[in-house]
Amino acid sequence: MDQSLTGRELSHGCCSYSTLKAWLPILSWLPQYKLKYLQMDLLAGLTVGMTTVPQALAYAEVAGLPVQYGLYSAFMGGFIYTFLGTSKDVTLGPTAIMSLLCFSVVGGQPHRAVLLSLLCGLIQAVMALLRLGFLLDFVSYPVIKGFTCAAAVTIGFGQVKNILGIQGVPQQFFLEVYYTFYKIPEARVGDVVLGLLCLTLLIILMFMKSSLGSDSAPTCTRAARKLVWAVATMRNALVVIAASLVAFSWEAYGHHVFTITGRTTQGLPPFRPPPTSDTIANGTVVSFGEIVEGFGGGLAVIPFMGLLESIAIAKAFASQNDYRIDANQELLAIGVTNIMGSFVSAYPITGSFGRTAVNSQTGVCTPAGGIITSVIVLLSLAFLMPAFYYIPKASLAAVIICAVAPMVDYHVVVKMWKIYKLDLLPFAVTFLMSFWEVQYGIIGGVAVSGVLLLYRMARPQIKISDHGALLMELNSGLSFPATEYLSHVMHTQALQVSPPRSVVLDCHHVSIIDYTVISELRDLLRQFNLREVQLVFSRLQPSVLKVLLAADLQGLRFTNSVEEALQMELGNLFTDYNQTRQIPVQSCRSNTDE
Amino acid sequence: MDQSLTGRELSHGCCSYSTLKAWLPILSWLPQYKLKYLQMDLLAGLTVGMTTVPQALAYAEVAGLPVQYGLYSAFMGGFIYTFLGTSKDVTLGPTAIMSLLCFSVVGGQPHRAVLLSLLCGLIQAVMALLRLGFLLDFVSYPVIKGFTCAAAVTIGFGQVKNILGIQGVPQQFFLEVYYTFYKIPEARVGDVVLGLLCLTLLIILMFMKSSLGSDSAPTCTRAARKLVWAVATMRNALVVIAASLVAFSWEAYGHHVFTITGRTTQGLPPFRPPPTSDTIANGTVVSFGEIVEGFGGGLAVIPFMGLLESIAIAKAFASQNDYRIDANQELLAIGVTNIMGSFVSAYPITGSFGRTAVNSQTGVCTPAGGIITSVIVLLSLAFLMPAFYYIPKASLAAVIICAVAPMVDYHVVVKMWKIYKLDLLPFAVTFLMSFWEVQYGIIGGVAVSGVLLLYRMARPQIKISDHGALLMELNSGLSFPATEYLSHVMHTQALQVSPPRSVVLDCHHVSIIDYTVISELRDLLRQFNLREVQLVFSRLQPSVLKVLLAADLQGLRFTNSVEEALQMELGNLFTDYNQTRQIPVQSCRSNTDE
Repeated sequence: MDQSLTGRELSHGCCSYSTLKAWLPILSWLPQYKLKYLQMDLLAGLTVGMTTVPQALAYAEVAGLPVQYGLYSAFMGGFIYTFLGTSKDVTLGPTAIMSLLCFSVVGGQPHRAVLLSLLCGLIQAVMALLRLGFLLDFVSYPVIKGFTCAAAVTIGFGQVKNILGIQGVPQQFFLEVYYTFYKIPEARVGDVVLGLLCLTLLIILMFMKSSLGSDSAPTCTRAARKLVWAVATMRNALVVIAASLVAFSWEAYGHHVFTITGRTTQGLPPFRPPPTSDTIANGTVVSFGEIVEGFGGGLAVIPFMGLLESIAIAKAFASQNDYRIDANQELLAIGVTNIMGSFVSAYPITGSFGRTAVNSQTGVCTPAGGIITSVIVLLSLAFLMPAFYYIPKASLAAVIICAVAPMVDYHVVVKMWKIYKLDLLPFAVTFLMSFWEVQYGIIGGVAVSGVLLLYRMARPQIKISDHGALLMELNSGLSFPATEYLSHVMHTQALQVSPPRSVVLDCHHVSIIDYTVISELRDLLRQFNLREVQLVFSRLQPSVLKVLLAADLQGLRFTNSVEEALQMELGNLFTDYNQTRQIPVQSCRSNTDE
Repeated sequence: MDQSLTGRELSHGCCSYSTLKAWLPILSWLPQYKLKYLQMDLLAGLTVGMTTVPQALAYAEVAGLPVQYGLYSAFMGGFIYTFLGTSKDVTLGPTAIMSLLCFSVVGGQPHRAVLLSLLCGLIQAVMALLRLGFLLDFVSYPVIKGFTCAAAVTIGFGQVKNILGIQGVPQQFFLEVYYTFYKIPEARVGDVVLGLLCLTLLIILMFMKSSLGSDSAPTCTRAARKLVWAVATMRNALVVIAASLVAFSWEAYGHHVFTITGRTTQGLPPFRPPPTSDTIANGTVVSFGEIVEGFGGGLAVIPFMGLLESIAIAKAFASQNDYRIDANQELLAIGVTNIMGSFVSAYPITGSFGRTAVNSQTGVCTPAGGIITSVIVLLSLAFLMPAFYYIPKASLAAVIICAVAPMVDYHVVVKMWKIYKLDLLPFAVTFLMSFWEVQYGIIGGVAVSGVLLLYRMARPQIKISDHGALLMELNSGLSFPATEYLSHVMHTQALQVSPPRSVVLDCHHVSIIDYTVISELRDLLRQFNLREVQLVFSRLQPSVLKVLLAADLQGLRFTNSVEEALQMELGNLFTDYNQTRQIPVQSCRSNTDE
């Protein structure tokens, strides 16, 4: 997002109305708001709300927090994003990946999760003000795909223990896999039956919805289609409600066959500053500094991942619905939401893919739909908490598994293999490292793809052909990491063979040349001179030629075309210079005794 | 240093004699050794020895260690390098920069310095076996220059207090500057006079030597020239001996007017494994783990800097004397020297620029000269230590200042300004950060130049011209960090203007295309299609075209020349496709409900 080209800041003063509109996008759409929009926004907000409540409860489970924290985190985004967001579709709130990251950083301690939200928000807001959204350019698709696949597997498998109703399984992925299988004999029949039923129902409804999308069912009447659509869209809420009713009935008769959510704190969260210290079990007070130190690298990864996830979603829907988003403004919206969220006991949030898709498909017209969603969440907090007592954990697990399953996209591996095999390396590194510690995956993947980029720079392809003189064609630019390699090729192919060969270097693709390259070229020219052979540069871009001339290289020769250069080499070496423009050879200064 | 091209491993089995010769370069030159070589090697070894002894004493001072540690570190290199080195000129031993780095990591504690040498050697040996010498490619000249300039200033200024004979000056650079000036009134007259005299003498001798290099003195007889050359070359030893005699005379009469070296441990160092724990002043034992933890980032920086310094020197003299070195083999030689050195109480060493220059100029023929130098150091340790008692610290300070002064090369700033201004940024970052903490400079500089490289990738130059359709010429390759920028330019220039414009993208300089770029292109093609304008690729390289075809992009159009593409755009849009090869547009799959 190089803003310099959009003219956003260029053409207007820093305090003009258009600048204000850029910072508060609501000013752009609110004046044109229509009653028709309100109808659509209301419907979309309601529909998304019905998905948000069960998902928020379930994701709190992933974050290792009491379920009400999911709802605490789910309402601030709708209000803030209405004012600050640049996409009509994006829905902010707790997500599976952020919950997993939050768990891996704070280990399920509510006070710290809330403090993390504050710090994460502050970092994101500062990044937005410094316009650091461009950092996302360095995260390639293979890294994103590798990360989401691994996160989906981690999150999905993490819920298997809830479907089985087993306790005391550790959270580290490999131990979790081991203990989940080890403890299968302890599985509770009630949970297994209910969990599998919920899963089956959710999968059927999901497929019903996707088959609705095509026009292959012309026999359905419009009303029937709408009903199916509504049921399928609210499937999460319906399944959880149904499961809770079943659980309630059994509990009412005194049969404790399901693992249920149990007692939760009722009512709205208090509005208060996030805690800056924490008291652990044995009464020791952990100071702010110690808590922050405990967050460690999480303070870099969580804000960045929040940005990444949200922007990836916003861009996908912007492209589909044909509008543009502003990455830095989106970052600001997430940052402010996290800051304000920390005052109402929220943990870090970001854009949710599933709920954004529901929002878009329901036909939301403006970000105002988020306000309706938030109101529903608040109403649930205020009045429905006693009912949440009976929600079976297995039903929430089913909701999560169905939400993350589509993120495992194995087709992408085939595509990468077909298109650019080297991209499989950052993908694999990200995927595998994510199982070790989820945030390491993204760091490792970005590092590997950066190294591959730099390595490609350090080892440019040089096509060598023999035309009397050697013709070396550089297939890409020439920057400092490539100097050593270029020199190595020149020495092994031309200078250290017997007799030494002249070289024509085709610099057609070189657009920038730096001081290190110049120094190496100076040395190479000296070596060619010593052996009485020539190094001729051909097809130099004007800007590069200018630099070579400014560098005052001794014995620099260049031609406009490769043919001209080869002709010269094949002709009278060292006699017929009128075809080339030559820089006079200056007296050789010796710098040996420095 | 991509070894794959040298055929070193390719054309020979892993245990053949040529492989053995590659690992033990002595096998290449020893069979051809001649008596004439021996004469030259003896002379060079002696001459270098006369420089090594005073410099080793002085550099130990820089490292904050007792002076004998300088000599302990100065003899192992000569023996090892004779067997393992690939350059006839390079002289391994303590250097100013390594001493400074060593001080900044271990703070002048001998036991830890020796342990650091062991670890540093192990890391270098492993790097050599993994053939990691190519890492040096990522250190650009501006970074090297910035670092050496800053190190020279730090080291040189650090000796001013010894010239002034003042005590109790802290070692942190800025505090050092402040306290050195603050304490000027405490300066000792004897030290100042002697220090300035030594400095003057050394500078005069240095200029005498450099004027000898030119042929502007035809009146000198050959013998006189030789005498001047010998005196000038051994100036360090002569000045230190003279100063010591002066100090001895005054001390003998009971006048303590000079700060002298004082009592040192006599004799050869014991051969024993380096200490793996340390006992500090109050008797507490510091464990191996704690010591290593204390080294921190130094364990990465010191081995790397040792490699960097030595290779830079080896390459400079290889180029001058027309032979090739092998970076990985050099790294192995330094690593083994550091490992073995730690058994004789040495601190980390590397190649010394000044002594290598003396070695080369004296006409050394093989690395065997190093053995003679080492013998001289050993003899000094065995017999001369009592005499070292009287060496005035001011004279050693003068030796150091004269050794590092030529490293401050301000011309390089002018050259960078002329050739490639952006290189001044890593130079300045390296230079300034080095004053904060010397190893941060090199890390900061490498990071900044890496970021600049990546940034250049992320923001390729796109030349836009209007020919009816927009012609966009990419000035360099197209890799994943550039996708967002390309998309931004396409949107602002062609898609979001009214009416939308068709674009011809000149991909002539694009040699590799990755999965992320393909994904973005797929999206862009969809956007162009939606707006009923075209995106035509022109002048694709065959490999890139193959990838685009493999990716099965909907609506992909491409032409061989820009003119063809523009003609098509200007002609009948959407009717006359026979000039282009078009991929059939497939049915659009929707992936929205994932």
